Amino acid sequence: MTSSADSPPAANVTMTPADARAAFRGGRVVPTAGYCAGFAQANLLAVPADYAFEMLLFAQRNPKSCPVLGVLEAGAVSSELLAGGDIRTDIPRYRIYHDGDLTAEPTDVLSEWREDLVSFLIGCSFTFEAALLTNDVPVAHIEQDVNVPMYRTSVPTVPAGRFSGPLVVSMRPIPADRVADAVRITARYPSVHGAPVHIGEPGALGIADLGQPDFGDPVEIAPDSIPVFWACGVTPQAAVMASGTPLAIAHAPGYMLITDARDAAYQIP
Amino acid sequence: MTSSADSPPAANVTMTPADARAAFRGGRVVPTAGYCAGFAQANLLAVPADYAFEMLLFAQRNPKSCPVLGVLEAGAVSSELLAGGDIRTDIPRYRIYHDGDLTAEPTDVLSEWREDLVSFLIGCSFTFEAALLTNDVPVAHIEQDVNVPMYRTSVPTVPAGRFSGPLVVSMRPIPADRVADAVRITARYPSVHGAPVHIGEPGALGIADLGQPDFGDPVEIAPDSIPVFWACGVTPQAAVMASGTPLAIAHAPGYMLITDARDAAYQIP
Repeated sequence: MTSSADSPPAANVTMTPADARAAFRGGRVVPTAGYCAGFAQANLLAVPADYAFEMLLFAQRNPKSCPVLGVLEAGAVSSELLAGGDIRTDIPRYRIYHDGDLTAEPTDVLSEWREDLVSFLIGCSFTFEAALLTNDVPVAHIEQDVNVPMYRTSVPTVPAGRFSGPLVVSMRPIPADRVADAVRITARYPSVHGAPVHIGEPGALGIADLGQPDFGDPVEIAPDSIPVFWACGVTPQAAVMASGTPLAIAHAPGYMLITDARDAAYQIP
Repeated sequence: MTSSADSPPAANVTMTPADARAAFRGGRVVPTAGYCAGFAQANLLAVPADYAFEMLLFAQRNPKSCPVLGVLEAGAVSSELLAGGDIRTDIPRYRIYHDGDLTAEPTDVLSEWREDLVSFLIGCSFTFEAALLTNDVPVAHIEQDVNVPMYRTSVPTVPAGRFSGPLVVSMRPIPADRVADAVRITARYPSVHGAPVHIGEPGALGIADLGQPDFGDPVEIAPDSIPVFWACGVTPQAAVMASGTPLAIAHAPGYMLITDARDAAYQIP
């Protein structure tokens, strides 16, 4: 329901990361699941330099939800993860937080940018979805053409300085006879959230209704499937909201940075 | 040559981490290889808070040499990795750097401590030596009862802010028919340097003479063995020396913090 009519899935899948970033820079606004198969997608969180140590420490202490793929130091807007790109324009949709409150969801952040912003690129579970599909494990939100559902949980993160807040998870319903495969396959990608943090029993995570995600869209869950939860790179956004950081710039959940890094680079033997 | 007569190896191996830290706090000064089998050992690097983000970023960008096991925030002298302990006294020997120069090697740092010091605990390859021994792969410096030899290389690290410098490696001679096993076994421990960075050919690392290590002691290399090199947690000390940080406190190479974390916690499947 969110993909544009002029970008058929097949073309998205085979697009290069540079071409995808150019398309988003040029105005295409879609969730990025299924784009550029084989290339790693990343969450963005940019905070003022005064908060940078605490955010990097928060990531170090919560590695399942915040695996750091790269850091753009204060003033930098590009890196080898987005060669020739610009972190301020190359994501389809952003979120701006002032004092912890979501204030805007623009498609670029050129007018909000400050020279003291440090940008953290954090692994995204979209990265391992190609591996699930290659192994014929279905990915419901891609099949249903919606954004992945994400939920705030009742599980606290490990605080770091001024940052704390709940673990955020993404959910994929997996056929019961493929759940073990999904664990095995995603465990090979510890840098992009790795194995699930929780399988079944959403109530135990404090999730009252799977049909009402906190971020993204609900998905239909087939009768033979159970909900499987992975740590999500939106977790640091929840920490920003909880901590009231004066300014933070993030991607809109599901609308990721597509990097030049290959998924395979994050796969362990 | 550096172990004390009143601490036979068997007693060291089975000692608890808390007892080992108490012994070091009480004045025992020995390299820690072989101590407390099954528990992770750690490198220390403490820098002023003004340098903390750049040091954590340096670690993030050089994960093979600087795998972060924990961070004690400014003012903290203990953590769950050394329960009931004190980072200023529980390491057998320290190194103090002023403006990048080594100025002292005391057995505690109580008089040098500052409230703004942030302590980084970095994984140590001593952690996987127990796994090598369990698999009958010999560890020469333990057999010869000396400190592990470490070398500055000609391989640069990835800089972060004011930190840059050479990769430092530890070297273990391994029988040629066990090198593949040593790779396989240590690769299971990515948080404590993991697989070797280099096998054979010390000249290609810029090491002119294996008999003259930059840190630690030389070891005898049996005719059937070849030198195998692992990334070493002394690397950030080399970065401190190269960058001229006004103050830094580190462990003396080979004289590690013994933590309460089990080696198994850092083992991947």
